[in-house]
Amino acid sequence: MARRSGFGTQLQAARRQEITPEMEKVSAKESVPAEVIMQRIAAGTVVIPANPAHRNLDPVGIGSGLTVKVNVNLGRSPTSSCLSEEVEKVRSAIRYGADAVMDLSTGPGIDSVRLAVLEASTAPVGTVPVYQAAETVERFEDLSEDDLLGVLSKQAVQGVDFMTIHAGLLRSHIPLASRRRIGIVSRGGALMARWMMAHERENPFYSRFDEVLRIAAEHDVTLSLGDGLRPGCLSDASDEAQFAELDTLGELTRRAWDAGVQVMIEGPGHVPFDQIESNMKRQKQVCGGAPFYVLGPLVTDIAPGYDHITGAIGATMAAFCGADFLCYVTPKEHLGLPDLEDVRTGLVAFRIAAHAADIARRHPGARDRDDRMSDARFRFDWETQFSLALDPDRAREYHAMTLPAAEHLKSEYCSMCGEKYCAMRNSAIATGRKNR
Amino acid sequence: MARRSGFGTQLQAARRQEITPEMEKVSAKESVPAEVIMQRIAAGTVVIPANPAHRNLDPVGIGSGLTVKVNVNLGRSPTSSCLSEEVEKVRSAIRYGADAVMDLSTGPGIDSVRLAVLEASTAPVGTVPVYQAAETVERFEDLSEDDLLGVLSKQAVQGVDFMTIHAGLLRSHIPLASRRRIGIVSRGGALMARWMMAHERENPFYSRFDEVLRIAAEHDVTLSLGDGLRPGCLSDASDEAQFAELDTLGELTRRAWDAGVQVMIEGPGHVPFDQIESNMKRQKQVCGGAPFYVLGPLVTDIAPGYDHITGAIGATMAAFCGADFLCYVTPKEHLGLPDLEDVRTGLVAFRIAAHAADIARRHPGARDRDDRMSDARFRFDWETQFSLALDPDRAREYHAMTLPAAEHLKSEYCSMCGEKYCAMRNSAIATGRKNR
Repeated sequence: MARRSGFGTQLQAARRQEITPEMEKVSAKESVPAEVIMQRIAAGTVVIPANPAHRNLDPVGIGSGLTVKVNVNLGRSPTSSCLSEEVEKVRSAIRYGADAVMDLSTGPGIDSVRLAVLEASTAPVGTVPVYQAAETVERFEDLSEDDLLGVLSKQAVQGVDFMTIHAGLLRSHIPLASRRRIGIVSRGGALMARWMMAHERENPFYSRFDEVLRIAAEHDVTLSLGDGLRPGCLSDASDEAQFAELDTLGELTRRAWDAGVQVMIEGPGHVPFDQIESNMKRQKQVCGGAPFYVLGPLVTDIAPGYDHITGAIGATMAAFCGADFLCYVTPKEHLGLPDLEDVRTGLVAFRIAAHAADIARRHPGARDRDDRMSDARFRFDWETQFSLALDPDRAREYHAMTLPAAEHLKSEYCSMCGEKYCAMRNSAIATGRKNR
Repeated sequence: MARRSGFGTQLQAARRQEITPEMEKVSAKESVPAEVIMQRIAAGTVVIPANPAHRNLDPVGIGSGLTVKVNVNLGRSPTSSCLSEEVEKVRSAIRYGADAVMDLSTGPGIDSVRLAVLEASTAPVGTVPVYQAAETVERFEDLSEDDLLGVLSKQAVQGVDFMTIHAGLLRSHIPLASRRRIGIVSRGGALMARWMMAHERENPFYSRFDEVLRIAAEHDVTLSLGDGLRPGCLSDASDEAQFAELDTLGELTRRAWDAGVQVMIEGPGHVPFDQIESNMKRQKQVCGGAPFYVLGPLVTDIAPGYDHITGAIGATMAAFCGADFLCYVTPKEHLGLPDLEDVRTGLVAFRIAAHAADIARRHPGARDRDDRMSDARFRFDWETQFSLALDPDRAREYHAMTLPAAEHLKSEYCSMCGEKYCAMRNSAIATGRKNR
């Protein structure tokens, strides 16, 4: 269902009270009336990142009143991975339920990776355009302002659905960051800070934000306003640098809306569990209810190798308190580039967070699958349990590790307790209820 | 530091204003004055499970104002595992920071497993005595009341530090459980329900609770009042059955205190994220502030293969809201008996939860290790990062997967971003601060 050319952005259509094919599709997937989707897009509290040039896109809605979504970061780094491996990661991500895919490739040949990712992904695709700009020069500060803005157009034409732009990190914020324990941990943010210091000029994505908006409006690219000053450790959370940038993001959100551009806001990072609620509320308030896209947040710094878990803990709390879109973290965070298995593990961890938050937010029908799973458990219906699992393959594999014979899929117990001690069996005997 | 015979329980000593060697040790480990530990034990809000017969015990305090503790469940099941494997699991659990170990063995030969576990474990050891009682008969209901109580004495003499007793599940509660989606999911609870229905009598652990208390007082066994009616799926959470049993546990808590017996309370299970806070508050209120020992709780039912993550999410929230002691869940939950690697993974997931909660509860000094880790990250000091990690071996292994050469341990970047894009490097350049 290709959109007419000259259709404008979803936000512009919604303001004209037009229901687009993308709104219809999101409505059907979310069981929310298309009218309501349209109203929320008009209000800026929902976005549908859908660049008309991304032909095979199955549109996804992100924001208020919708299920919580999960993004998977992919892409090669200068030291690791090849194109076919990245495409394999996209396929795996879609298979295990990713709602969006960001291609964060750096190093040579990233155009070809991006085109392959766009082709392989039915989910919206996002990028951080400065990574590509950086490839063309030795030192990032060798880029001109036009170089930086030029990459946006190029990627928009290719079909990128959303772009992280670090427009809120101002020159005046850099001294705040230098007082931090570990400074700036956003790749794009650190590059922009380096550029500003070398040129002694303001961030061009801020000073020329109107041009950014023109490109975004023309291709209906949803802007994901990057938090270059997100805290990278618990000690730096909720500090002056973070909130100074957030205030700028609030200002830019309103400018995006004025230009008819869809926008969401990126958030922390590393945040102690008790500070997550106040962070979410502050963001929603400062940014007028725009969708909030969080990276984790990680609730401790001491678990390298397990940061998909520290991230999923923070993400559940964040989504419960209003975050709409979760960027996954893999077990390799802080240690190296994730491989295919890391992508799967990180994604499932964050699908757990999103789903747990949907249930906790009392999203209509969110618990239905859990209830079907519980019914299947009580019936010892192993095949149904596997099929309802977030990762059916792993559930089946783990079950088979201790009870490998096919006949065990008919057993009314598993190896955890064995037959005699199985609570489900004994409970049925005690209460006079049959398991099957 | 063996205790004098006739010394009585830690609770009795605390009431006499005596500071025991165990209180001294807990005081030193927690940096809390021994006087304060003593007062909290006297008030029942802290326990030190320390059976004098467990010779090599390094005592652990659990409860109000102390760091959150993590228990690891071990033990063979009738279908899987051998003694040496269980001892290996104990060693691994201690190595990765378990604060307590429960031997939940079922099947033949469990006396020898328990003795081996007691010998291998410097952490307090817990059991569920009915599992052993069940071994002696064909059907659980063939046991007499004396058989059930007899096992307690036997295990107390062996040196078990804490025991789960399902004394709060009354005959009158069983009809409440039969209305549930999946009934009783506690192994011990289901066995006791089966016994009550067959005998048409009250739960002997309740009707003869004074005898239970006598045994516990004699050996200073800490009672862990089991929640036989814990919800086993989200749909059954916070229901009449769960809270009816909780009220009985509140009554039994007071009776234990009257008898000078240390006591903690077990809790759910499977609970939607938004119901965790009210669950924790209700338990603390009903049970007079006794330490709360939760199993997870799991915040969704649809993630078999990843239930260490669903559990760690719920556990963080539970501990943030007042739970003192977390029982880990492994990736094999609902699927089979955990192996050595599952024990490690489940334990680290729950150590993350406990630590994240310590930080969120603003426990003094809780964030120090995180800050040292962050400093090491900024310095690209990989060896210090590994040594501060909750699982140093895994952190090192993951780092080496993409940068295996020894010289990479001196690199000022990792394979996630590579040198040019490394935020820590670019941030240092922008802010004029040196990484090293």
